[in-house]
Amino acid sequence: MNTKIPIEKKVLSKNDELAQEIRQMLAERRILSLNLVSSPGSGKTSLLENTLSALKGKVRMAVIAGDVQTENDAKRLEKTGGGIIRALTTGGACHLDARMILKAIDDLNLDDIDVLFIENVGNLVCPSSYHLGEDMKVVLISTTEGDDKPLKYPSMFRKSSVLILNKIDLLGYSDFRADEALRNARNINAALKIFEVSCKTGQGLDNWYTWLGNQIAKKKEANPSTV
Amino acid sequence: MNTKIPIEKKVLSKNDELAQEIRQMLAERRILSLNLVSSPGSGKTSLLENTLSALKGKVRMAVIAGDVQTENDAKRLEKTGGGIIRALTTGGACHLDARMILKAIDDLNLDDIDVLFIENVGNLVCPSSYHLGEDMKVVLISTTEGDDKPLKYPSMFRKSSVLILNKIDLLGYSDFRADEALRNARNINAALKIFEVSCKTGQGLDNWYTWLGNQIAKKKEANPSTV
Repeated sequence: MNTKIPIEKKVLSKNDELAQEIRQMLAERRILSLNLVSSPGSGKTSLLENTLSALKGKVRMAVIAGDVQTENDAKRLEKTGGGIIRALTTGGACHLDARMILKAIDDLNLDDIDVLFIENVGNLVCPSSYHLGEDMKVVLISTTEGDDKPLKYPSMFRKSSVLILNKIDLLGYSDFRADEALRNARNINAALKIFEVSCKTGQGLDNWYTWLGNQIAKKKEANPSTV
Repeated sequence: MNTKIPIEKKVLSKNDELAQEIRQMLAERRILSLNLVSSPGSGKTSLLENTLSALKGKVRMAVIAGDVQTENDAKRLEKTGGGIIRALTTGGACHLDARMILKAIDDLNLDDIDVLFIENVGNLVCPSSYHLGEDMKVVLISTTEGDDKPLKYPSMFRKSSVLILNKIDLLGYSDFRADEALRNARNINAALKIFEVSCKTGQGLDNWYTWLGNQIAKKKEANPSTV
């Protein structure tokens, strides 16, 4: 469909402009921002529930919880009492875009936030094309999916800085080979920072919290003008 | 983005025309066609592996195995020796469309086929908008995802005729409630035909095979001119 390409490019370039606006706003306030991406059901909301509960009172957190329909995730996150939660329902769209995030940010007091989590729509394809002004993408996969997911959806793994392998408590109940999945991921993107966790048992999450704390501290020291 | 809507409509309407061509071609040969949709990792390929192995020699099967990248699924399916397998790599696109299917069908001898399975890209959002000329969409969810998936991705469940709940061997290892998931699915689409299966242990698959056999038989008796 040759006729479609220029329009998609135009949409993406407009999105990039808005993403740059967001990046600047967050940088000026030294807010770390992470865009969480994965298939439906890999555990984005569970990771955030754990993180909000664990770092409550230590770090000032906000979440923009995106979904095609329902505010179920936002409600789950609010129950932790660990941060400011905003639901963002796309009403059918398969990804978040920068325009949606700008609107959601408008409703947040950015001076009260150290870290902004953006929980994207559950989709391993489309969200990889839309920058949201974030510092990093964090991609989740779980041990109940196939271990070839990084090869099948390379764009998402290439554009992510962090990979979280979730549901390690279920290793051995399926044919999933963790070493194969991580090898596939590193073949796509050797720079990936990897955490192996279980959001159900809590295993491995301390490493994630420590890393997150360090990233927030680094951001506080960063010079916003270099963004 | 108001400017985008007319273009999307145009793309979808062109897709519908091509889908109608496919529908006609398959109807004339009384071929049953099923479009399998789900998140990555819910078990589309595993279901097809089991089905090809179980019905080998009884039913003449073909699969168009779609993926963003890699022909891994097609290779897995070929190993069963149960049918004609064609890999379809979208090269980045988040769904299959009718144009791709028309091209793939061109390479199949339709007179040798009773049932055509189309394995869509792993994505619970975008493939719901693209008809492929299929008789029915079959949506899979697994017990390791969230039980609110039908509420969060309603379009896919509304447009599907069949729901397969996979990985029932893992029930109890997570907070997934099967009754809640099926209740949510029926609230979105009361007409869904539901199968609860484990593609790992084989539990529940006999019901699926029986139903499939009946659908193929019905299709053989159908009048193509009423399509």
